[in-house]
Amino acid sequence: MSGHTTNLRLKLPAICFLLQLFTIILFALFVRYDQETSARLWHEELSHHNKSNQDNDFYFRYPSFQDVHTMIFIGFGFLMTFLKRYGFGSVAFNFLIAAFAIQWSTLIQGFFHSFHNGKIHIGIESMINADFCSGAVLISFGAVLGKTSPIQLLLMALFEVTLFGINEFVLLSVIGAKDAGGSMTIHTFGAYFGLMVSRILYRPQLDKSRQREGSVYHSDLFAMIGTIYLWLFWPSFNSAITACGDDQQRTVMNTYFSLAASTLATFATSALINGEGKLDMVHIQNAALAGGVVVGTSGEMMLTPFGAMIAGFLAGLVSTLGFKFLTPILDARLKIQDTCGVHNLHGMPGVLGALLGALVAALATQDVYGDGMADVFPLIANGSRTAKYQGAYQFFALLITLGFAVVGGSLVGATLKIRALGSPPDTQCFEDQIYWEVPEDHQDGYMTAVNSEDPERSASV
Amino acid sequence: MSGHTTNLRLKLPAICFLLQLFTIILFALFVRYDQETSARLWHEELSHHNKSNQDNDFYFRYPSFQDVHTMIFIGFGFLMTFLKRYGFGSVAFNFLIAAFAIQWSTLIQGFFHSFHNGKIHIGIESMINADFCSGAVLISFGAVLGKTSPIQLLLMALFEVTLFGINEFVLLSVIGAKDAGGSMTIHTFGAYFGLMVSRILYRPQLDKSRQREGSVYHSDLFAMIGTIYLWLFWPSFNSAITACGDDQQRTVMNTYFSLAASTLATFATSALINGEGKLDMVHIQNAALAGGVVVGTSGEMMLTPFGAMIAGFLAGLVSTLGFKFLTPILDARLKIQDTCGVHNLHGMPGVLGALLGALVAALATQDVYGDGMADVFPLIANGSRTAKYQGAYQFFALLITLGFAVVGGSLVGATLKIRALGSPPDTQCFEDQIYWEVPEDHQDGYMTAVNSEDPERSASV
Amino acid sequence: MSGHTTNLRLKLPAICFLLQLFTIILFALFVRYDQETSARLWHEELSHHNKSNQDNDFYFRYPSFQDVHTMIFIGFGFLMTFLKRYGFGSVAFNFLIAAFAIQWSTLIQGFFHSFHNGKIHIGIESMINADFCSGAVLISFGAVLGKTSPIQLLLMALFEVTLFGINEFVLLSVIGAKDAGGSMTIHTFGAYFGLMVSRILYRPQLDKSRQREGSVYHSDLFAMIGTIYLWLFWPSFNSAITACGDDQQRTVMNTYFSLAASTLATFATSALINGEGKLDMVHIQNAALAGGVVVGTSGEMMLTPFGAMIAGFLAGLVSTLGFKFLTPILDARLKIQDTCGVHNLHGMPGVLGALLGALVAALATQDVYGDGMADVFPLIANGSRTAKYQGAYQFFALLITLGFAVVGGSLVGATLKIRALGSPPDTQCFEDQIYWEVPEDHQDGYMTAVNSEDPERSASV
Repeated sequence: MSGHTTNLRLKLPAICFLLQLFTIILFALFVRYDQETSARLWHEELSHHNKSNQDNDFYFRYPSFQDVHTMIFIGFGFLMTFLKRYGFGSVAFNFLIAAFAIQWSTLIQGFFHSFHNGKIHIGIESMINADFCSGAVLISFGAVLGKTSPIQLLLMALFEVTLFGINEFVLLSVIGAKDAGGSMTIHTFGAYFGLMVSRILYRPQLDKSRQREGSVYHSDLFAMIGTIYLWLFWPSFNSAITACGDDQQRTVMNTYFSLAASTLATFATSALINGEGKLDMVHIQNAALAGGVVVGTSGEMMLTPFGAMIAGFLAGLVSTLGFKFLTPILDARLKIQDTCGVHNLHGMPGVLGALLGALVAALATQDVYGDGMADVFPLIANGSRTAKYQGAYQFFALLITLGFAVVGGSLVGATLKIRALGSPPDTQCFEDQIYWEVPEDHQDGYMTAVNSEDPERSASV
Repeated sequence: MSGHTTNLRLKLPAICFLLQLFTIILFALFVRYDQETSARLWHEELSHHNKSNQDNDFYFRYPSFQDVHTMIFIGFGFLMTFLKRYGFGSVAFNFLIAAFAIQWSTLIQGFFHSFHNGKIHIGIESMINADFCSGAVLISFGAVLGKTSPIQLLLMALFEVTLFGINEFVLLSVIGAKDAGGSMTIHTFGAYFGLMVSRILYRPQLDKSRQREGSVYHSDLFAMIGTIYLWLFWPSFNSAITACGDDQQRTVMNTYFSLAASTLATFATSALINGEGKLDMVHIQNAALAGGVVVGTSGEMMLTPFGAMIAGFLAGLVSTLGFKFLTPILDARLKIQDTCGVHNLHGMPGVLGALLGALVAALATQDVYGDGMADVFPLIANGSRTAKYQGAYQFFALLITLGFAVVGGSLVGATLKIRALGSPPDTQCFEDQIYWEVPEDHQDGYMTAVNSEDPERSASV
Repeated sequence: MSGHTTNLRLKLPAICFLLQLFTIILFALFVRYDQETSARLWHEELSHHNKSNQDNDFYFRYPSFQDVHTMIFIGFGFLMTFLKRYGFGSVAFNFLIAAFAIQWSTLIQGFFHSFHNGKIHIGIESMINADFCSGAVLISFGAVLGKTSPIQLLLMALFEVTLFGINEFVLLSVIGAKDAGGSMTIHTFGAYFGLMVSRILYRPQLDKSRQREGSVYHSDLFAMIGTIYLWLFWPSFNSAITACGDDQQRTVMNTYFSLAASTLATFATSALINGEGKLDMVHIQNAALAGGVVVGTSGEMMLTPFGAMIAGFLAGLVSTLGFKFLTPILDARLKIQDTCGVHNLHGMPGVLGALLGALVAALATQDVYGDGMADVFPLIANGSRTAKYQGAYQFFALLITLGFAVVGGSLVGATLKIRALGSPPDTQCFEDQIYWEVPEDHQDGYMTAVNSEDPERSASV
């Protein structure tokens, strides 16, 4: 264990205090309530524009926000509790880094999207976008779960949120791509960023911790809490920032059917690829969600319900096959250790979703969209570009995202290699005990595990 | 174990792929976005009818939909995880069959309720109704939990959804009964359908699996997640498709008070009927919910808050007594093995709710309902029938529902007896291991259980 | 165990039946649907005031209500399941007393706030307020968790709800204090009331049950379900009854940032005060929530986002330090045994929140609030008092609340000392087995625990 110290007594408080203090100062300098949140500004709006309090954006976004919020903290947090000895770290580090990321991304996204007269103006939409951005960080967290210290994770969040903001700005504002549910900005970016970090932090000796990489019966049930909440609220995720009216309703419906179809595909494929026809919880917990990822870009478009089902079905199929066949190859050949299989749930379905979005955009016609074209494809509606060009730009957006993710993830991974950041030794990965005060039954489990894997030490006890 | 094969390697993929493919084809042929979901149609609506995006039905139904959605997948799914060795099957088969049922019922209900010019038009209301229908299937699932293969369950869903659609059409459209929260269409139908299926699939040798029919400490806590979510969101369930305005608010309030009263009745009765005055988790997990079922029909009516409380109180009482005294009789005398006690939670309270609905309908007066009569009882408001006739029709609706459930459940039960469907042998009921890859601690538990119940085999180990 | 009988066979049913019956009678006599819930009244409103069904208050309050409802039953209920052998009692007694408290507080609050022409008129706002009031009772429950019978808890709820109603009436209606999120009325009141009850019920021999006061690995994960839901929905809690429009959105945003900052402060402080730099689940489960409590009064004010962060940060810090340093002192010196540490989560942050509210109120200016002043500080807006006076009244409100809580808690504590109420003996605290039928694995745990703590008995087995 030489060279590694996982004692965070001074380092973790220091980085938390510093990041929080720095954030507070930047908020004090730059961040203000927007027109719908400020007492004075909203009441000016009311009197000047003949509005009523019921027109406040709050009533059209807040229920979606709370669903997204639940996905970020319950969904991602519990999904990762499947590990038998890393439940605390899964749900609580998820909590920590998301709590930081939503603050930091409010600043970063604010600078790019709502910086006027030297101030960032924030409201319910910025809260949704901040949660979205932290979603990308949590996807990356899934790739390195159990192999990183909370300090590394906070630093990863700091850098990743910043890059996320730049990539998102380029995609949405510079090249005019559409990506309301984040197939590219969130899933593809988060997954490949995390996979590159994991590649750089490759642990050749990780086998020493493999006995802790599985689940126990009840940890799989805890994980299902996460899975089901992600599945339930994914329609809210994809629709949370689309235009009001038909757009939100259509996005919800497309996502709903895509997820339903990916669930059947996952059960089917899971049984098919198992020698005895048994189902595998890892597949159900993850691949059934691929239907939400795959319509992240196209969900707001006129995808049609059966189109959404086909997309979801293929995503569930590809994702399940990925867990079985691709994850071992990534590990053995490419030296990418992907704890939660984010490549299968977010990576491939994200890329598929981006391609699907490009295709559906390229096929957009005035006949199908009518006056609704302006909401979905404003640049087509105002004549700036044709549908085919929009499709091409969507495709470029995918390439740009992959570029940002791979280069960014590599650089950040290299930064996180600094020894002083408290990462666990190879023998102590996927183990809560190094960062947490744990109850007796967990300690007992540790001794049993240590003894059974090390006969000599067991004998000497 | 001769004659039984529970290996689903080809069968489960085959049925999942077939059902999903068939559904996709039917969706492609018949299902279209409705006026509030389609980009072109909604924007035509906007310009022709002086509406705004904020008038889209989405904003008045989506929060309720998400509550219902949570009940179906978290509520029902986790409620059934109380079994010590069937947690995977409970939450994940619930997931599978509900994911299929919401697709299939969109078609079936669409043919009956929104089939115009050869197309089914769907939107947020059809999503709520599809979730409702899958609720009936999950109630039936509760009766056969642990004794059926996922293939049997998918086939049951296929047939039950179809019959549900016919029964619902007869009740709501043909005889003009009211049943917004589904005391009849969902609870009575789902319960007696499932009980008949269980009757037909009667297992005289089920005692060989009884040692697995109980709970462990933490599985009871997982089940409480399901219970509490069902309890919390039942007001949304009963109000999700009532008329907008006072109707939704009144339904919510009636359900809220009915549930509160049934909770006190359940705790009281549970302690009373136990020899030592101890409370029983089975009662709390189930009977406390009877208050939601019993106001499923009358919740939108002018039931009054104290009327709702009386109804809830009686439902909690009857339901708890049912678990203690009736379930054993059903099993021993009527050969109905009801794993989750759906007769107590959905069957009797559903029938009570139907009768209460008939009574409250028969007592409706213009003085009490004012102009609101048109929303609650349109046929009384337009003079087609008197309140007493409405009450009588409500009663007929109950009889029709019982008829559909009993006959339909028997026929479907007979179909599910086909051996090739992979049902577990009598010795392997309530056991995840036959359909799931399970973690080591679950396998160990299995060996211990097998050994302790079989002294000879234990001795030879 | 002489003198104690924990058999509740007749007593618990008797008190449940009596309380429910009494409540139903009072509801029948006094409680009616309000204008937005009654079919006749709402439709009169529609025709007389040119409103539409979409203007019904339901659509602006119900999503918030459901979030609050989830906090009360899932949040509080599961937060308390951290105890290794009291999971049933935690979630289910929480369920029982909240189900009673929401009914009783509808009456009590109704008499004080909506009693017109001899009737109480109720709707969605009364439901939110009833849930709020039950929140105070559940905070007090946290202080006495594991040491009281359900009968004592129901009686505590009966008295506490009544006192809560009086205190709330004095604060909001008599002295015109603002406290939308209940830093004073809910958190300060609930905490100090519960602490006084615990003081009066002091158990000098509680050490005999200390071995059960800790957690096991999975009980800590169940508790995190409660924590995260409380954290997620606290913005809804604080904003649920503020004025519509900017006020709700601003309250949500302030709470969101306060909670994020308190989370970082909690992780930092938890690692700092632990000898080995390890994190403590008790802190994460509780202190991370202090950010919600501390902006309960000031959340609707123009606190600014960075002001909210500073408040949350300090609250997380103080709360974590409280768990480490103050809880042992309260126990050893002041004879206050505070099972869940409600002094740290609700007591101190509540007082801080009241003081912060007084400060922010005193600083209110027309320039900052504009026409929105009338919503936040109606008495300042109409010229009845200055901002400084409002601040002073806020401070008096804190003192009054502390007075009600301390005196009320003492009196109620004394009442609960009656022996016949079935409280557990000192050796049986924090143990589900005395009130619950428990599964085998829990019974086994009990024998093991008993044996290991009693060597003689262990030897004789």
